[in-house]
Amino acid sequence: MPLWEFPDKMSLSRANVRDMTLKKWESITEWPLTVLSFLFLIMYAWQILAQPIGVWNDLAEWSMNALWVVFGVDYLLSLLLAEKKWDWFVHHLFDLIIVVLPMVRPLRVLRVLTALNALHRTSGMALRGRITMYAAASVVLIVFIGALAVLDAERYAPGASIRNFGQALWWTFVTITTVGYGDYSPITGTGRVIAFVLMLGGIALIGVVTATLASWIVDEVGAEEKKETQITREQVELVSQRLERIERKLDDIKIPKQS
Amino acid sequence: MPLWEFPDKMSLSRANVRDMTLKKWESITEWPLTVLSFLFLIMYAWQILAQPIGVWNDLAEWSMNALWVVFGVDYLLSLLLAEKKWDWFVHHLFDLIIVVLPMVRPLRVLRVLTALNALHRTSGMALRGRITMYAAASVVLIVFIGALAVLDAERYAPGASIRNFGQALWWTFVTITTVGYGDYSPITGTGRVIAFVLMLGGIALIGVVTATLASWIVDEVGAEEKKETQITREQVELVSQRLERIERKLDDIKIPKQS
Amino acid sequence: MPLWEFPDKMSLSRANVRDMTLKKWESITEWPLTVLSFLFLIMYAWQILAQPIGVWNDLAEWSMNALWVVFGVDYLLSLLLAEKKWDWFVHHLFDLIIVVLPMVRPLRVLRVLTALNALHRTSGMALRGRITMYAAASVVLIVFIGALAVLDAERYAPGASIRNFGQALWWTFVTITTVGYGDYSPITGTGRVIAFVLMLGGIALIGVVTATLASWIVDEVGAEEKKETQITREQVELVSQRLERIERKLDDIKIPKQS
Amino acid sequence: MPLWEFPDKMSLSRANVRDMTLKKWESITEWPLTVLSFLFLIMYAWQILAQPIGVWNDLAEWSMNALWVVFGVDYLLSLLLAEKKWDWFVHHLFDLIIVVLPMVRPLRVLRVLTALNALHRTSGMALRGRITMYAAASVVLIVFIGALAVLDAERYAPGASIRNFGQALWWTFVTITTVGYGDYSPITGTGRVIAFVLMLGGIALIGVVTATLASWIVDEVGAEEKKETQITREQVELVSQRLERIERKLDDIKIPKQS
Repeated sequence: MPLWEFPDKMSLSRANVRDMTLKKWESITEWPLTVLSFLFLIMYAWQILAQPIGVWNDLAEWSMNALWVVFGVDYLLSLLLAEKKWDWFVHHLFDLIIVVLPMVRPLRVLRVLTALNALHRTSGMALRGRITMYAAASVVLIVFIGALAVLDAERYAPGASIRNFGQALWWTFVTITTVGYGDYSPITGTGRVIAFVLMLGGIALIGVVTATLASWIVDEVGAEEKKETQITREQVELVSQRLERIERKLDDIKIPKQS
Repeated sequence: MPLWEFPDKMSLSRANVRDMTLKKWESITEWPLTVLSFLFLIMYAWQILAQPIGVWNDLAEWSMNALWVVFGVDYLLSLLLAEKKWDWFVHHLFDLIIVVLPMVRPLRVLRVLTALNALHRTSGMALRGRITMYAAASVVLIVFIGALAVLDAERYAPGASIRNFGQALWWTFVTITTVGYGDYSPITGTGRVIAFVLMLGGIALIGVVTATLASWIVDEVGAEEKKETQITREQVELVSQRLERIERKLDDIKIPKQS
Repeated sequence: MPLWEFPDKMSLSRANVRDMTLKKWESITEWPLTVLSFLFLIMYAWQILAQPIGVWNDLAEWSMNALWVVFGVDYLLSLLLAEKKWDWFVHHLFDLIIVVLPMVRPLRVLRVLTALNALHRTSGMALRGRITMYAAASVVLIVFIGALAVLDAERYAPGASIRNFGQALWWTFVTITTVGYGDYSPITGTGRVIAFVLMLGGIALIGVVTATLASWIVDEVGAEEKKETQITREQVELVSQRLERIERKLDDIKIPKQS
Repeated sequence: MPLWEFPDKMSLSRANVRDMTLKKWESITEWPLTVLSFLFLIMYAWQILAQPIGVWNDLAEWSMNALWVVFGVDYLLSLLLAEKKWDWFVHHLFDLIIVVLPMVRPLRVLRVLTALNALHRTSGMALRGRITMYAAASVVLIVFIGALAVLDAERYAPGASIRNFGQALWWTFVTITTVGYGDYSPITGTGRVIAFVLMLGGIALIGVVTATLASWIVDEVGAEEKKETQITREQVELVSQRLERIERKLDDIKIPKQS
């Protein structure tokens, strides 16, 4: 489950009890699928940057189609294995879009983003550290894929300004940081859809940076209050122990009374 | 009451006691008015995108004027039914602007935004989920209405760059995300007022995304402290129970004393 | 003291004890100075927008110079009346810059911003409401003053694109929202300094909108925890009362013992 | 350790116990290195702005190379003196990049940023005040260095728009505030890398401003809850004292009993 779907704690704990078969399937396929995702990305990058011709282009096309079938089979099997199918379906809409829309190539490449889930599971780190790493990795991937996709869409369009990978990468940076000089801008429909995804990514980036920083500052400043809460808790414990002693002493008094 | 007016809890709870007639009126008219709002939007979109001529254009004009009269009557009736008229008036300034300014067509179309209140009432969701949905729906509506309105304002202006709906939609995206390439920009007064509303919407969008994320991170990180607060509360309860037992024992001691 | 100087609680509480003469002076001069500030702004706007010639221009010049002398005298008197002169000096650096730099006219017009302090003192509102009002008023004033100042600086510069107030206002909006189309941009040094102030204002605007929203969401979500803290406090009070009763009972036991 | 590496409290407290030799070395070299860093920056600025020729240019080149050797030696010595070498290495990756990449001159100038650590140690100020100062100083330095570096990279490139320091400074402002008019934009690879660093700096700037403001508002609004927590703590203390008295009284009762 990607990080950007608000994690539903309930369903997570229920998942532990639920079907082990889906979990097993996921743990078995996780690393192979991550590798295949990156293979897909490499193929995609190779096709766009090296522009292979003849057999080589066919190879790229066919291997990407084959990988797409693999991803589709994985999606169907996961859905079949899931016990609460509707829950799983709703939480994996992003995966569905990637698999079902074969027309739009760049979306399929975004499959690589789900590989970041592997990161998610290395849980030794604190939440803020994981969010920072996840955000950084997402930005790098989105910028790279975005530059490839926009180059593919714009390169041969008449009147387009984005004509090589350097220009595409530069435009992607300028867009995702919401700077938007306007020295390069997409003119095709596909290019503009990619731009829109990048812009939303930029707003999310600002959001993640700010929110992580804010959480850190609030925590540091609030450390004092936290301390106070802890002191209170410790003192309440002391009170409880003291009361136990008093109760025992009272019991001691009672016995001689009745004798 | 739209979400962007800071909800005044006091007035909300007072509203429960207040006049049932306004509430009844609202519950009766809510869905019909929502439907009529979307009808207004469809008419507006049809008039701008299909550019009907002759009778068809008159039909669009007249139906929109009729709908405007309906909204005006609803506003007046709601104001009459409200017990604390001044309170209601202050909290519904946005509705007033929409109804009273018939010159500026796009503002009237914003009436659709109040339809989002229906969303607001499906209260099964948590606050952050509702804010996210509300923000997403608002952005989609504002982008669509903004693109229509700017197209209507710029299309036939001499020297204008926004000339079809695709360009208008692209410009709206570029503006609301505060990217601002400058490949298209409005040159008419109306177009620039629309741009300003979109820019403010963009800043609000960044704000909502960031704030929701920050709140989520703060909560996740603060979960530990929350736990400590709960432990303290439970232990204080234990202390209280222990004291009750001690008091009863003390009473037991006292009785033999006096005999 | 303007809101953007982080309020130092210590110095505020110390101020209550401190010299009453400065406070008296401030309470006496507050409204007259606010009126004079707006008079200064009106004069400035009139000079730039109406471009008076001959005697009328001299009148505008002289009245603005006279007002500047008044502000300077107020600054000096306030500094003299302040007990902790260094503290006052450090907390009013903004006022000093406005008074001391008579070369840069727009900075002097920013004197109007200190008039917002009157807003600050109408303390019936909650903090978030006051911040929102303060920010909104600041943005309106900064946009208006910025548009005037940039028009004054660019209007007759060779090759400049900002040539009338409409263009200046549009450029100011585009800049403060960090959209930056680039259809208009300043080319003079003064114009670019004004642009920089507007850009910083835009970042501050995003900050204030986001921070206020975040604080509101955090509060709404955290309402539950707040409740728990309150329950704890009430129960601790109950425990305390119960203990008082026990202590009294123990004293009752002791007396017959010794008799 | 720069502020932007999330401070690891554990390692900080362990550092107190750890090797005193590294700490001594750092306390000895801190001010000289800060002075040398600024000397490096001055040399760099002088070379770019004054464009010295012949001997003077050689002097600038050689003095900068000499300073670079000094920084390299300091890096190696610090690494040798560090007890937990891997920890130190990981926490000083930024310093390594600066020292190891002599090709990219502007990165070496960023060495000045580590001089801000001196600020970090003047710990009389509260966290928010320190963050604000650190951010302000970083922005000023980054803008100045960025303008120098982009001027150096673009000045003589065919078709470039940034040709003097005024234009470079203006472009830097427009970029770091994410406004991005597009009246000037870099066309060389180096210039675009600098632009990317500035854009990220701009997003970080928005983040810091917003987060600091949010933390301040949350604190001010939360002051009430803080008070409640403190009242609870005080009352729990009272309860504890009362219990101590009761226990002593109980002991008094017990003694006559057994006699």
